[in-house]
Amino acid sequence: MNRDAPSLPDAVQRMLRAVLADESKHPVLPSPSPETLRRQLDLSLPSTGRSFGEVIDELIAVARVTPRTTTTRFFNQLFAGREDAAVAGEILAAVLNNSMYTYKAAGVQILIEKEVLAHMASILGLPGGEGSFQAGGSLTNLAALLVARGVAFPRWREHGAESAQAVLYSSAESHYSIAKAVGILGIGRSHLRFIEVDEAGRMRVDLLGQRIQEDLAAGRRPFFINATAGTTVRGAFDPIDELAELARQYGLWLHVDGAFGASVALSRSRRHLLKGIDRADSVCWDPHKMMGVPLPCSALLLRRKGLLQEHLGEGAEYLFQEDDDELNPGQRNLHCGRHNDALKLWALWRHLGDEGWERRIERQYALAAHAKRYIEDHPRLVLSDEPACINVCFEVEGADSAWICRRLSQLGRQKIGHGRVKGRRVIRLVTANAALEEADLDRLFEDILEVAEEAPPPPSPAG
Amino acid sequence: MNRDAPSLPDAVQRMLRAVLADESKHPVLPSPSPETLRRQLDLSLPSTGRSFGEVIDELIAVARVTPRTTTTRFFNQLFAGREDAAVAGEILAAVLNNSMYTYKAAGVQILIEKEVLAHMASILGLPGGEGSFQAGGSLTNLAALLVARGVAFPRWREHGAESAQAVLYSSAESHYSIAKAVGILGIGRSHLRFIEVDEAGRMRVDLLGQRIQEDLAAGRRPFFINATAGTTVRGAFDPIDELAELARQYGLWLHVDGAFGASVALSRSRRHLLKGIDRADSVCWDPHKMMGVPLPCSALLLRRKGLLQEHLGEGAEYLFQEDDDELNPGQRNLHCGRHNDALKLWALWRHLGDEGWERRIERQYALAAHAKRYIEDHPRLVLSDEPACINVCFEVEGADSAWICRRLSQLGRQKIGHGRVKGRRVIRLVTANAALEEADLDRLFEDILEVAEEAPPPPSPAG
Repeated sequence: MNRDAPSLPDAVQRMLRAVLADESKHPVLPSPSPETLRRQLDLSLPSTGRSFGEVIDELIAVARVTPRTTTTRFFNQLFAGREDAAVAGEILAAVLNNSMYTYKAAGVQILIEKEVLAHMASILGLPGGEGSFQAGGSLTNLAALLVARGVAFPRWREHGAESAQAVLYSSAESHYSIAKAVGILGIGRSHLRFIEVDEAGRMRVDLLGQRIQEDLAAGRRPFFINATAGTTVRGAFDPIDELAELARQYGLWLHVDGAFGASVALSRSRRHLLKGIDRADSVCWDPHKMMGVPLPCSALLLRRKGLLQEHLGEGAEYLFQEDDDELNPGQRNLHCGRHNDALKLWALWRHLGDEGWERRIERQYALAAHAKRYIEDHPRLVLSDEPACINVCFEVEGADSAWICRRLSQLGRQKIGHGRVKGRRVIRLVTANAALEEADLDRLFEDILEVAEEAPPPPSPAG
Repeated sequence: MNRDAPSLPDAVQRMLRAVLADESKHPVLPSPSPETLRRQLDLSLPSTGRSFGEVIDELIAVARVTPRTTTTRFFNQLFAGREDAAVAGEILAAVLNNSMYTYKAAGVQILIEKEVLAHMASILGLPGGEGSFQAGGSLTNLAALLVARGVAFPRWREHGAESAQAVLYSSAESHYSIAKAVGILGIGRSHLRFIEVDEAGRMRVDLLGQRIQEDLAAGRRPFFINATAGTTVRGAFDPIDELAELARQYGLWLHVDGAFGASVALSRSRRHLLKGIDRADSVCWDPHKMMGVPLPCSALLLRRKGLLQEHLGEGAEYLFQEDDDELNPGQRNLHCGRHNDALKLWALWRHLGDEGWERRIERQYALAAHAKRYIEDHPRLVLSDEPACINVCFEVEGADSAWICRRLSQLGRQKIGHGRVKGRRVIRLVTANAALEEADLDRLFEDILEVAEEAPPPPSPAG
C-alpha cells in the first residue's frame, strides 16, 4: 500500500469533477478510428504497475475520449441522460460489493430489492407474484421463456426436449432477444412464428389467432406469446388485453416484453397503453431505459409465486446454508454471484417518488410531441409514424437516413441511430433523456438538415 | 433540478467518506432479522420524493447496516476485500454508462475490453482465440456450453433438440452452474454425468474414460467435458492435461470452469496447476474472485475465433449499423445492452501490472499456508484436506461446523461459511482478501474456538 496514495473518496471526487467538467465542455465527440485511439492512448496491460493516482489520471484520459451517453446530444439508444441519485446508489453498490444470492451475504440489500420488485409488481397490477433482477432485458426475456417452457413441458429441464412441436409467437417487430432466447433454450428458432404487424406496428391479433389454429391443427404445441410493450424502433404497443384473451382461450403463457415501454405504467395518462398487463404471466421491465438508471437494471415480474425457484433453483449446500429461501434470491435467478441492481433504482425512487416518475414520463412524452410538431411543420421532414411512445421516426425527404446518422457521428455533432419503418430506413429519435430542452431537439433537427444537404438519396425500399 | 443540491462528485465523496469510516469502525456486523431492519429503516418507495442530499443520507444509513464483504472479517465467499483502482474504474463505468454492444456507443471502452481479453487469453496460452465478458461465472459457463452444443449439434439452435442422446461430464464437486446451464439450454440435466473425485477432490480420469465408453457403447453422443480449476469448496484442480487428452481422443469439447482458480495463471509458481489449459476449447475466468475486482467480472475465453458470433450473433439492423462486427461485441454475447465490466479490471491491471498480480496470488497462498499451519499446530483443529488453492477446510473436533458459522454471524464476529469434504461438514476459509494480515487469521481461529465451546457435536457424516 502506498502511503501517499489518495483516499478512495478523494480520488473519486477528483475523477468525477474532471470527467463532468470535460463532458459539459464536449457533450459529443467525433468518432475516431481504433487506430487513432490506440496511437493517442496506451491501453496495454503493463508488467510493472503504476500508482493509484496515476491510474486515476489514466481513467480521466480514457473518459475524455469515451462516447457520451448522458448528454443532450445522445439519441442513439433507448436510454440517455444521467440521474445523480441513481448513480450514487450504483457507486455505493460497487463499494459495498454484496453478492445478491443470500441474506447472509447481502442482508438489507435483499430487502431493498424485494421492496423495489414488489412496488413495480403492484404498479403493473401483479401484486401477488414475484420478481427478480437479471443483467439486462435479453436475459430477463430468456428467464421468462425458461419458466414458461418449464410450465408447459415439465420434463424438459431434467430430460431434454419434451416436444419437437413446441411453438411460440412474437411480432415481426419484436426485439431480437426473443429469437435469441428461443435458440439458447434449445427450443429451436424455427419454432418461433413472427406475426405481422398492423400499420401502427402492433402485432395483428387476427393473424396470431389463425396461426395458433393452424399450428394446433398440424399437431403442434403452442405454449407462449410474446407481446411487446414499446417496440425497439417505433415504440409500438401490442394490444396486450386482446393477446391475454387469446392466451387464456388457448392456455398459452403470455409474456410482455416491456423492457422499453413498461415504464409508461408510471403515468396515469399513459397507462392505458398497457391495458391487460395485469393478465400477463410475466413481464420484462428495464428501468435502465426510460427511467434513466445506469445499466443494467432489468426486472422480471411474474404473476404467480413459486415458479422462479421451481424452474431456476438448484441445491447448493455450500451457498444456501442459512435463512429461508424466501430471503435467498440466488434460488430465483439465472445468476449465482450477482451485482446489486436494485439499490440504484431504490435511490432514484426515493428521490423522485411516484410523482416524480410520473412527471418524468410526461416530460419525455412532451419532448416527443415537440419533435413531432417540428417534423410536421418542416417541409423537408417526413414523419414515418404516429408515435405511441417516445420514439419519433422520420426521414429527410430525398436523403439516406443511415448516411445522415453516420455523418453526424463522424463529425461529432450528434449520436443518433436509424431503423426501419414500413420498409423504409428512417431516423429514430428517442426522447429518453428527461433533461433535454426543446432547444436541444431543435438543434438536433438543424444539424440533421444541414448534413442532409450532402446526403445521397435513400436506397430503394428493399435496400 | 434543485439548485442547492450538492454536485455528484461532492455527494459521492461525502458518502464514501462516511461509509468507509463506519466500515473501519465496524468491520463486521451482527445479522439482524428482516423484521428488525424494517423497524429500523424506512425502505418503502414514497409518493413524494426527497432531495438528493437526503437520499445520500439514506444511502449512508443503509450502508451502515449492510453486511461487510470488504473487511478482514469476511471469509464467506470466494471473493473479499476492496481494490481502490478497480472500484474507481467501476465508478467511472457507471458514470459514463456506455453499453458494450457497439463501437459507436462505447468507442474506446470496446478497445479496452479487447485489450483485457487478449491479455487474459495470452496468459492462458490461448492467444489466437476470442473472448467476451458475461455478468457472472454461471452465465459464462452457460455461454461456453451453448457454443459447444452448437459445434457438436449445428442444427439445434435453429431446429431444436438434434439428439436426445447428447451427454456431458463434470466432476461430482463441480459448481452447480454446470447442471443449471444444462437445464437452461434444454439438454436435460439427467444427461449430465457427475464423475467421482479422488481423495484430493479431482475428477477421476479413469472413471470418466469408462463412462464415455459406456455411453458410446449405448449409442449416446458424448460432446462436452467440464473440468474445474478451483472447486468451490476444496479449491481442487481437475487434471486438465489428462482431460484434454481424453477430449482429443473422443472429439469432445473441453471447457475449464476456472471461475475461481484460473487466476493462478498469474503466478509462475502456481501455473502448473492449470497444466493443459492451453488445450481447452473454452475457459471461464472470474476476476471478481481471486483478483478482487468488484462483481461481476467474468470472462469467457475460447481457443478458436469466430464461434461466438456464429452461435450468439443475431441480425439487428436497428443496433448493429456501423463498423465491422469485430468492433461490435454485442454480436458475441448473451446480452444486448451490457455493462462495462472491463474497465475496472483494466484499471487494476494498470495499477498492479503482471508483477503485482503475481505478488497478490503469492500473498493469498502465503495466507492460506499460515492458516494451514495454525490448524495443524492446534490440538482441537482438524485439517480436512491438503489445500491446492487458497481454500482451507477444517473442523473443530467435536463441534458442528454449520452451527459455528451461524453463531459467528449472529454475534457479528466473523462471516465464514461451511461446505462438505469427504462427507463431513467443514468450515471453509478462503484467503481471497490479499490485504489480510496473519493476525486477522489468528483472530478468526480464536473466535471459532471460543464459539465452538458451546457448539453441539457435528451431525453424523450423512447428516
